[in-house]
Amino acid sequence: MKILFDTSGGDNAPLEIMKGAFDAREEHGIEIAFVGKKEEIERTALELDFKGGLEIIDAQEKIENNEEPAFALRKKKNSSTVMGLSALKAKEYDAFISAGSTGALLAGGLFIIGRIKNIKRAVLPTSLPGLKGKTMVIDSGANVDCTSEMLLQFAKMGKVYLEEIFKVGNPKIGLLNIGSEKGKGNSLVKETYELLEKSELNFMGNIEARDVTLSDCDLVICDGFVGNVILKNTEGVAYFVVKYFSEFIKNSDIDDEIKLNISKLLNNASKGLDANEVGGALLLGLNEVVIKAHGNSNSKAIKNATKVAIDAIGNNIIDKIEKVFKEDN
Amino acid sequence: MKILFDTSGGDNAPLEIMKGAFDAREEHGIEIAFVGKKEEIERTALELDFKGGLEIIDAQEKIENNEEPAFALRKKKNSSTVMGLSALKAKEYDAFISAGSTGALLAGGLFIIGRIKNIKRAVLPTSLPGLKGKTMVIDSGANVDCTSEMLLQFAKMGKVYLEEIFKVGNPKIGLLNIGSEKGKGNSLVKETYELLEKSELNFMGNIEARDVTLSDCDLVICDGFVGNVILKNTEGVAYFVVKYFSEFIKNSDIDDEIKLNISKLLNNASKGLDANEVGGALLLGLNEVVIKAHGNSNSKAIKNATKVAIDAIGNNIIDKIEKVFKEDN
Repeated sequence: MKILFDTSGGDNAPLEIMKGAFDAREEHGIEIAFVGKKEEIERTALELDFKGGLEIIDAQEKIENNEEPAFALRKKKNSSTVMGLSALKAKEYDAFISAGSTGALLAGGLFIIGRIKNIKRAVLPTSLPGLKGKTMVIDSGANVDCTSEMLLQFAKMGKVYLEEIFKVGNPKIGLLNIGSEKGKGNSLVKETYELLEKSELNFMGNIEARDVTLSDCDLVICDGFVGNVILKNTEGVAYFVVKYFSEFIKNSDIDDEIKLNISKLLNNASKGLDANEVGGALLLGLNEVVIKAHGNSNSKAIKNATKVAIDAIGNNIIDKIEKVFKEDN
Repeated sequence: MKILFDTSGGDNAPLEIMKGAFDAREEHGIEIAFVGKKEEIERTALELDFKGGLEIIDAQEKIENNEEPAFALRKKKNSSTVMGLSALKAKEYDAFISAGSTGALLAGGLFIIGRIKNIKRAVLPTSLPGLKGKTMVIDSGANVDCTSEMLLQFAKMGKVYLEEIFKVGNPKIGLLNIGSEKGKGNSLVKETYELLEKSELNFMGNIEARDVTLSDCDLVICDGFVGNVILKNTEGVAYFVVKYFSEFIKNSDIDDEIKLNISKLLNNASKGLDANEVGGALLLGLNEVVIKAHGNSNSKAIKNATKVAIDAIGNNIIDKIEKVFKEDN
């Protein structure tokens, strides 16, 4: 099993990417390779005191987060994204992990790798922390204008992903809506409700946005616009509430030493809400294992993202998704 | 100035509704009246030790939250919602305040009171707390399938509301989107961006869901589906984070007395995040002052909702919105 890491993308690249890759190699006994600026990779390996041989694809260009993905992919043939995905397509590696531009990775995945037969759109699933464990949201931002057929496909892909990678048996699937009763919502969710109800999925009906973090739903289905709103709103509100508490306690009339203790506790608790715990998500619907790691991934997140890749390869997840969609027209 | 209160709607009706109304009368010197079950209103007045005369519209029926609004309005002619709105329409009162079913109040507002000329849809604005003060979200749930023209109208109505009731000068208006750059988003927001950019409004461009609580934007524009998602997700995440901290601290290895102190601090801080602080929102686009109070309003929330009504009447907000839309076709 050989995994390719993009050393150009992400806030903490290349250092944390490479450290995470080395750690994953150590822990899981996999082979690793890097795609990015050769001299930078070599320098960073020295910095990390790495003595072994390095497999490098020299990619001198980098696609920035603010570039229009399709345009950047055409223009920057020597980017780590294009070269990495091309090497994956050529079966030189078993998986590709990148913390770079989500849009470019997804568009590149579609153009270079291609979709599994009968799948209309590829999606990025995201895990959010919650009262009763993690909840997965699909789509979390890739497809902003969706049809009900696409949402049904998201549910089917998500089920395989949760079962194979996270070992959730017959996951409970909810349709994000503005009320729990059937018949609520806009035309898209009303149509999707009918499709999910008729399907063989473990459909629990509508769930409201409040319950993304509060219910025991395993997988929440929504279009990518709404999913992105949930994701970013969750980030913002969590940040705000933590900040609000910290300020409140700072300005309260208690002993300085106790204040310091509370601050430490709040900090430790905040770590439990950290996105780096999961690390990375499989782009669902593509014909190869492509993992998107969070933009601000540290080495731990990259190591965890690598575990997702290893499980996806080990469980033949691409074949399993292919099988589900074989009969779809 | 005479304000009519619905004593049938809300989790804490009729006691907290009536207590809030009496408090508002005391504080602001207004006249008040109640619509609901006569015997219940009289009994509650005794309970509250109220000695003065009571103006009551006897409405023996109640529309429940889970009833389909349009159907319930036709069937329950003697409901507090129908009778209250009809009395408002007949100019017997200057405003109507209800903590009952939002859907019924909005549908009743449209059928019984009617819209201001040229306004396509009525909306419910909601204020969310944030790092840099409150942010208003419109639409927060009334209209789930919207056009760009509707969203432009929401922005224009919200501007008047913020200026007249909350004294925010030339409010900064953001379009909720999944990225900050122009050209992002689904077809609805792309079209709306063009309209807002061409308008005379203080349009600051796209804002992401993260920034609803973190930025200094005064008014966030979105369709009612997305607005409702933001509202309920914010509720859920805030609850989850508070709960998470509480559990974390409860299970931590510190002195029991300090734990108790921290719990008290967290509780007090949570109160600052409380929806009861604003109390009520004006249904924008209707031809009379109709205020929706939060379903779980206590007397303080009702008193604050009454203040919104008083300001709306005192500042002739209906006339001012009418004027803005006079020239719209």
